[in-house]
Amino acid sequence: MTELVLTTFDWVPDLPRGYVRDLRIRWALEEAGLPYRVESTPFRGRGSDHFAHQPFGQVPWLTDGDTSIFESGAIIIYLGNLSTRLLPAGAKSRAKVITWVFAALNSVEMPAVPWSLYKFSNDTVSSPGRTQLEGWLDSRLDHMETVLSDRVWLADSFSIADILMADVLRFVDRFDALSTRPVSRAYVARATERPAFRKAHADQIAHFAATD
Amino acid sequence: MTELVLTTFDWVPDLPRGYVRDLRIRWALEEAGLPYRVESTPFRGRGSDHFAHQPFGQVPWLTDGDTSIFESGAIIIYLGNLSTRLLPAGAKSRAKVITWVFAALNSVEMPAVPWSLYKFSNDTVSSPGRTQLEGWLDSRLDHMETVLSDRVWLADSFSIADILMADVLRFVDRFDALSTRPVSRAYVARATERPAFRKAHADQIAHFAATD
Repeated sequence: MTELVLTTFDWVPDLPRGYVRDLRIRWALEEAGLPYRVESTPFRGRGSDHFAHQPFGQVPWLTDGDTSIFESGAIIIYLGNLSTRLLPAGAKSRAKVITWVFAALNSVEMPAVPWSLYKFSNDTVSSPGRTQLEGWLDSRLDHMETVLSDRVWLADSFSIADILMADVLRFVDRFDALSTRPVSRAYVARATERPAFRKAHADQIAHFAATD
Repeated sequence: MTELVLTTFDWVPDLPRGYVRDLRIRWALEEAGLPYRVESTPFRGRGSDHFAHQPFGQVPWLTDGDTSIFESGAIIIYLGNLSTRLLPAGAKSRAKVITWVFAALNSVEMPAVPWSLYKFSNDTVSSPGRTQLEGWLDSRLDHMETVLSDRVWLADSFSIADILMADVLRFVDRFDALSTRPVSRAYVARATERPAFRKAHADQIAHFAATD
């Protein structure tokens, strides 16, 4: 392993602060106790160097020597391979964690992000497609409430899957989507009380505030 | 390795046929030449056994002995670990493929599925949230057009990332989203001309037709 460098924006507006996806990576790095450095890329004026690392013009990306990785899911699995604190070594346990990594991103975050677009834009227009979108998210959150009712963490112990699922669930709870789902809300509280989350969150807030 | 068993619904309506996510897994299994068996679970009346394997009541899931995995992304990475034809062994090449696996699902499929809800329901109602959703998908597809313009496959050779990305892109092209994106459309054609895709697709169609 060479030096791990996490790149995020130099600045973002107030709204996404505390939720930019470098948070997930900071959190994982802190949980694992892996040394890392944070670098910035301009939020305004994304150049060819940015697109070379992240072809959609988003953040974060991680470099480890000449390996450059984007997508928070891919980065967090890469980090999981560096620390059994994040991803266990046994094949069956690994499969369980990786299953929940994808469930967080593809079964829960997938309806959550488009739903949030309506919420952030105070869009009150009803339509058949929107009704389906809301029903889809509700169904996924209801199932998560059931899943979380019999366990402390998604797999056998805290893992990268919990980092992603807790981050997705606290995001929908910005609009009180967990107000009728106490088990999920307690899970988010349990996850975000961890010192590694607290440090990651404070570091992200400080990072963006430094360029205000 | 014990016996690989892929479970999908016993029947689905016409609309999703050829697109149910067991197709991705069949495709990967065919590319790798791994032996497998397909089992069915009721589409109507999803019982506790279904939810024990797939807590959101969806398909597919894969069992390998006493290991049970859901989420097409997680299953396909599991299969990738069984065959270097799907996922290369070197750390840097692996990271590249896994990055594109997540990009297919989280950067492209994430806006594609909610967008399709409006299309499938013939929803013509305009609203600020919907405009953002459409802009989000357009931007991601535009970036993919750029990415694909300098390569045959996403990573150094055909991989699980291409199975997922091609499947997501052919899905949006059900509503002609690639009509102004010839490079992406050619990529989909290249991927779906592979014998493994053709067999996987024919097998899925036959599977659902058998219970009509």
